[in-house]
Amino acid sequence: MRRKGFLIVLSGPSGAGKNSVMNAVFPTIPNLKYSVSVTTRPPRKGEVDGVDYFFRTEEEFDELIQQDKLLEYATFVGYRYGTPKDFVMEQIANGNTVIMDIDIQGASQIRQKMPEAVFVFLLPPTRAELEKRLTLRGSDAQGEIAKRLQKSWEELQHVVHYDYFIINDELSRAAEQLRNIILSESSKVSRIDLAELQSLWEGRG
Amino acid sequence: MRRKGFLIVLSGPSGAGKNSVMNAVFPTIPNLKYSVSVTTRPPRKGEVDGVDYFFRTEEEFDELIQQDKLLEYATFVGYRYGTPKDFVMEQIANGNTVIMDIDIQGASQIRQKMPEAVFVFLLPPTRAELEKRLTLRGSDAQGEIAKRLQKSWEELQHVVHYDYFIINDELSRAAEQLRNIILSESSKVSRIDLAELQSLWEGRG
Repeated sequence: MRRKGFLIVLSGPSGAGKNSVMNAVFPTIPNLKYSVSVTTRPPRKGEVDGVDYFFRTEEEFDELIQQDKLLEYATFVGYRYGTPKDFVMEQIANGNTVIMDIDIQGASQIRQKMPEAVFVFLLPPTRAELEKRLTLRGSDAQGEIAKRLQKSWEELQHVVHYDYFIINDELSRAAEQLRNIILSESSKVSRIDLAELQSLWEGRG
Repeated sequence: MRRKGFLIVLSGPSGAGKNSVMNAVFPTIPNLKYSVSVTTRPPRKGEVDGVDYFFRTEEEFDELIQQDKLLEYATFVGYRYGTPKDFVMEQIANGNTVIMDIDIQGASQIRQKMPEAVFVFLLPPTRAELEKRLTLRGSDAQGEIAKRLQKSWEELQHVVHYDYFIINDELSRAAEQLRNIILSESSKVSRIDLAELQSLWEGRG
């Protein structure tokens, strides 16, 4: 039976493990699509343009805003991030589930434009564990880590605006929880075509 | 971390497989409790008082109503069914998940009293399949099956008042879906103690 597609918005402190959790879930759910963000941040080692992000200049980013091509955009630690609108809308129209990984500012804009989206907050088990992960990653200077930790604490206050929260104490368990949420949301009555359901059930479909 | 308990209300036509699906889910979820209903219907073969139902006389049922001991009650094909209130409230207060299997009249009463409960509608794949299951069960006379089929069609119109729906075309898949819903609902932000979450995260808990 055909169901309406929907958008999953995943937020959480830098270092919470958003990418690892999403990567673990992708192979297990058909019709799950990743919304690639646009950013003015320079690529980290190993990041590929068009796969991890669309890496754009400040001028190119301004142009996307002016052409109303972004569903949301926000600034985080000096760099801008945004979500290309067309991709998300097309996938949802085709009945697919789209997942995106954005900060709380971006999530807040999405909430206003698409209140029917599903908002998930991913949290590392403790502040100490988060600090360890950020340090181990080695991609940020010490001053930047301190900034990110402070930001994380502020972000945690916004969990109340999210639908679900997941504590990433163990990757496989966190991924299973995200998977449960996506599958469960697919069973929402609000996402089915009731006329089609009744017709199928009567055997006239 | 401590989470608030909640109530799952499972409805669906007689013969949809509510008991089979619940039985398959129980061993897989800790803290899931079954709310045993009270009924004036005579026991079917193999049914045990206090396990499948509390079997009570009409007079005893009246008394439960008068003492305000029922969370809801309704009449279905000539018999009365009700939900003992104390058990449900105690389990939820203790952080457990309670599941109950009630018809749409009872579910509607629950929805008014406990809008925060989770409402799931279970559906057999087709009307023809439902008729087959009811006939195979052999516990109902042919006239009663016709009555139940008509009732089922009327009930299907109420799916719009439920949060989730599951098509029971294959028991293991339907049980997996119910399990996903229960686990996913446990991850709802509305069911956590935010002060406790923040305290744990800061390492002060």
